[in-house]
Amino acid sequence: MKKSILAVVSVLSVSSCSTHTLIDDGIPSNTLPKNVIMVIGDGMGPAYTSAYRYYHDNPITQEVEETVFDRHLLGLSSTYPAAESGYVTDSAAGATGLSSGVKSYNGAVGVDVNKKAVQTVLEFAKTQGKKTGVVVTSRINHATPASYLSHNESRQNYNEIADSYYDEKINGHFKMDVMFGGGWKHFLRDDRNLVEEFKHSGFQYIDKYEQLDTIIPNQPALGLFSDGGLPWALDDSIPHRLSVMTKAATKNLENKQGFFLLIEGSQIDWGGHNNDIAAAMGEMDDLAKTLEYLEAYVAKNPNTLVVVTADHSTGGLSVAANGIYKWKPESLRSFQYSPHTIANRLTNEDITAKFANFLFNFDLTGEELEMLITVKHGTQNALPEKEAIGNPYQIKNVSNVNQAMYKAVKYLIDQKTNTGWTSSAHTAIDVPVFSFGSHSHEFIGLNDNTKIAKKIFTLLGRK
Amino acid sequence: MKKSILAVVSVLSVSSCSTHTLIDDGIPSNTLPKNVIMVIGDGMGPAYTSAYRYYHDNPITQEVEETVFDRHLLGLSSTYPAAESGYVTDSAAGATGLSSGVKSYNGAVGVDVNKKAVQTVLEFAKTQGKKTGVVVTSRINHATPASYLSHNESRQNYNEIADSYYDEKINGHFKMDVMFGGGWKHFLRDDRNLVEEFKHSGFQYIDKYEQLDTIIPNQPALGLFSDGGLPWALDDSIPHRLSVMTKAATKNLENKQGFFLLIEGSQIDWGGHNNDIAAAMGEMDDLAKTLEYLEAYVAKNPNTLVVVTADHSTGGLSVAANGIYKWKPESLRSFQYSPHTIANRLTNEDITAKFANFLFNFDLTGEELEMLITVKHGTQNALPEKEAIGNPYQIKNVSNVNQAMYKAVKYLIDQKTNTGWTSSAHTAIDVPVFSFGSHSHEFIGLNDNTKIAKKIFTLLGRK
Repeated sequence: MKKSILAVVSVLSVSSCSTHTLIDDGIPSNTLPKNVIMVIGDGMGPAYTSAYRYYHDNPITQEVEETVFDRHLLGLSSTYPAAESGYVTDSAAGATGLSSGVKSYNGAVGVDVNKKAVQTVLEFAKTQGKKTGVVVTSRINHATPASYLSHNESRQNYNEIADSYYDEKINGHFKMDVMFGGGWKHFLRDDRNLVEEFKHSGFQYIDKYEQLDTIIPNQPALGLFSDGGLPWALDDSIPHRLSVMTKAATKNLENKQGFFLLIEGSQIDWGGHNNDIAAAMGEMDDLAKTLEYLEAYVAKNPNTLVVVTADHSTGGLSVAANGIYKWKPESLRSFQYSPHTIANRLTNEDITAKFANFLFNFDLTGEELEMLITVKHGTQNALPEKEAIGNPYQIKNVSNVNQAMYKAVKYLIDQKTNTGWTSSAHTAIDVPVFSFGSHSHEFIGLNDNTKIAKKIFTLLGRK
Repeated sequence: MKKSILAVVSVLSVSSCSTHTLIDDGIPSNTLPKNVIMVIGDGMGPAYTSAYRYYHDNPITQEVEETVFDRHLLGLSSTYPAAESGYVTDSAAGATGLSSGVKSYNGAVGVDVNKKAVQTVLEFAKTQGKKTGVVVTSRINHATPASYLSHNESRQNYNEIADSYYDEKINGHFKMDVMFGGGWKHFLRDDRNLVEEFKHSGFQYIDKYEQLDTIIPNQPALGLFSDGGLPWALDDSIPHRLSVMTKAATKNLENKQGFFLLIEGSQIDWGGHNNDIAAAMGEMDDLAKTLEYLEAYVAKNPNTLVVVTADHSTGGLSVAANGIYKWKPESLRSFQYSPHTIANRLTNEDITAKFANFLFNFDLTGEELEMLITVKHGTQNALPEKEAIGNPYQIKNVSNVNQAMYKAVKYLIDQKTNTGWTSSAHTAIDVPVFSFGSHSHEFIGLNDNTKIAKKIFTLLGRK
């Protein structure tokens, strides 16, 4: 293990913590953090951060290297929604808990159980004169960012939510100064061209990552880089696109009054929903690089608070499965394409051993290759018995060879790595909480998602 | 939610923590905790403590009640064994990490990768003049307690380990003053009667829970209450037997020099291995009651440190599964018998709706009843297709109706509660760490299992 100075600093800052607490008597306003950065790894339960440590481990050294998550862990968060939705949250209710401090029903975006708008920490920051921003790898009007920027009875009302980004103002001003992510299809519509409207109102607009370097500081910016969500990290032209967007956002937002920035590694969740460990680890790596950038940012700007958590965990991921005491991430470390892309290419091009080995970036066994060829030839229905060993719901109810191939590719990876899943949906396991920078010790222990919001409100100066 | 004063106290004690840290410059010896109590929930990963919150929730109130775990969470622990065993630990290597601060191979009991004995915190406490004890619900010579009390190249050498409890001394004295748990078959053998040997050496011996009240303080005590592990909490004559044994142990161990006590909720792990959520929640409830007793103990004896963690997580438990956003613990709350016992009785007695409803303590659907009758009549081989939906490995390779019935009972419960599992073995997910009492704030953050041992050594006075 590389000796990490940051790890020691992190522990010391926790141990020599102040005697003032939020619980106790509030925080003197002159010690409040200037900048607050909230980072959400969507779906990033403790299995993801644990798996990432072993994925990230350098196989050449005897020890297991510490990750950026390890350095800043301070506790866990419970994620359950309002009672009417049971114990398992969706991303909307989870993000609404984190953004507003209010438990709501699954599907709720910034509204309470009575569908009434509730103020979010981003909105409150704006009222305090701070700049605000969101940086995500999903559409910028997806459930998590929407729950900080909007109020809607349903996360499914994507166009309404996009419209509200332009239409809803705070004291006559836009709620946000920077928005980076995907979403052309909602912002460049036949019935409304929100991009043009934002441009007319003074926003810079960019649609290529390369333009991130060109945006002018202290002038609002809208960056949309794809129709819906961004490509998987493993497939994108810049695999660490979240960290690149984050760097540009922090530079743009810096100002005397400070800023509130929401960052979401949105697609960890999608890896979970798809039971796709390779894609999930690619997204985790992008988030880790983002946190490493933020570590350096906080070192230079110590009056910045960074809080990192998840809205819930996805997929019932388990780091080992099938009665075997092993998790074998070795093959995951060399992926150059997402399993989605590998499946597309295997569907549309001739499958040879050489081509398959090239796509996976490791040598397949004869049996693995044979399985892929069998699936390609449309005989995937012969596979469920074998399939049932690891992931029973993987090759099932598929409407075409491409879908079957994606499931086969994931099955192959799960068997090779001994990865387990129980669901295509979310679970109620508590999620990890990490924090560093100004007042980070406030997040020690178990914090319900609503408690995280309440602490951030207080740290933004709400009495 | 009931407003909890303890919760506030816990947060305050963390937030107003001392400026002295182990990492920093050691602890002044006059502030060291007098008593150190290490509690291990074997197999108790974060899914177990999360599930327990919802199992424990009072359905009459709108809010979700806080558990004793919630009040004292301070971080997570990584559990990986020595590199030669990969990333997934067994209970022996996990407990050896926690007891000695040394990573070892799976199967190792208090020895390093070269099979050389390593000093444990319990042994060190003894050298410091403290009394020591172990209280477990497994055999007292099972992997976890053995890794604190013994040194053996293999956890499977149960008789050798039992012998070592009598034979290995520290400065001519026994290593332990109190041992409560199971294990007649290893301590009352044809080739050696260790119970008699301990009695001849001044130990009180008891073999019924009722006798726990009668043991004389400050005189060593051996209590063995079953042949192997104790009955499941759900089946035992005293369902909260761990807390009852713990109470007796603390009373016996109290002395001017203080004590080190290891407590293990051993069978949470067995619920996990069996993929038996009802049994696992029964064991969690016993552990929770034990921690509630220890909360009161620390309130009266504030110079006591309690550290609670797990050696690993078991079974790939997920709190929701099958693509459904629900976990439904309602039926779990009323179990009066373990699924093991229910299955035995369904195998050996006539299955009627009334009898089955009595055993499960809820009303089965016609379909559920029919499944049990089908299994009983030995036609379980007709079930795998249906079975595969939830737990593919549940009804498989069973040698008799009783085993098939146990699998069917668990399948029924998993479907009813929407619980998921991926394995009959362990996983590499990080496990929660809880601590309260003297110097508890030292355990904030991520602590590898070996780091927990190193901190305890320091808190016991090792320079």
